[in-house]
Amino acid sequence: MRQKAFQDYYPDHFSHCYGCGRLNGHGLHIKSFWEGDEAICIFHPKPYHTAIPGYVYGGLIASIIDCHGTGTAAAATYRTEGREMDTEPPVRFLTASLHVDYLLPTPLGVPLEIRAKVKEIKRRKVVVVVMLSAQGKVCARGEVVAVRVPEHLMPDRVLRELTSIEGRED
Amino acid sequence: MRQKAFQDYYPDHFSHCYGCGRLNGHGLHIKSFWEGDEAICIFHPKPYHTAIPGYVYGGLIASIIDCHGTGTAAAATYRTEGREMDTEPPVRFLTASLHVDYLLPTPLGVPLEIRAKVKEIKRRKVVVVVMLSAQGKVCARGEVVAVRVPEHLMPDRVLRELTSIEGRED
Repeated sequence: MRQKAFQDYYPDHFSHCYGCGRLNGHGLHIKSFWEGDEAICIFHPKPYHTAIPGYVYGGLIASIIDCHGTGTAAAATYRTEGREMDTEPPVRFLTASLHVDYLLPTPLGVPLEIRAKVKEIKRRKVVVVVMLSAQGKVCARGEVVAVRVPEHLMPDRVLRELTSIEGRED
Repeated sequence: MRQKAFQDYYPDHFSHCYGCGRLNGHGLHIKSFWEGDEAICIFHPKPYHTAIPGYVYGGLIASIIDCHGTGTAAAATYRTEGREMDTEPPVRFLTASLHVDYLLPTPLGVPLEIRAKVKEIKRRKVVVVVMLSAQGKVCARGEVVAVRVPEHLMPDRVLRELTSIEGRED
């Protein structure tokens, strides 16, 4: 059975993200999974995600790196705390800063492989390094500084919802 | 008469960008204009450009900063060379690196004002600093390092097209 993506564990309130929210009907639906110590995401850009014809739009690359980075920050925190992603309290990260170096033009029409590694992990801040490749070549390198959403800032309705889904498996 | 946006001067081949291409039917159609020494862009995110409900997706913010930054790099180069944007040879920039600091959550449902200033300008490289505000508050700060597309790397068909539009005014 295929493992659930990091993003599939996000509470509903955090699932409207244009980049990775399962509840955003217009979004990119970026999905991240563990593969050993790295988090991997395979993404298929649409034909209209163009920079110049034949190449992938840099803003899309930044978006994928961003969501894959914050997702990895959350998943790594659960791992560090020795618990599964469906346990409480919920962990969510926001992006404090995003840096992308565009190393090579990224070809359009092939799947992109995005690999993330945790560079630094603290309770409130995680730094994730992300490499984006196409056809085996690294085309972009990113770094995401992710900060944890403090529990007292999580909206009440999230906490209510989390209470209600305790033990639910879907 | 409203001035033409920087992006409206791009040759057709460079007008398919998802962020700012006038020929991309699915794109964001970011438009940049001079306002004194600054370049300004007003952008209206769609309701689905969500991070968490009520706030703008960070990847969209990165995309706007990217396209507004490279557009400003091109426009500033024409200015420095003392010529209009519809004169030859054409000038286009690609993003070498993009950095965004997310300072405040950016509210969704209001227009965003994005202002760019040239920090450093050389023939082959322009560094642009970009501030993104909503309701008068700066929510994100970006820096774009833009590199000029060398003329010999411009596709032949662009050159052909440019030759054919010489003197055309639209």
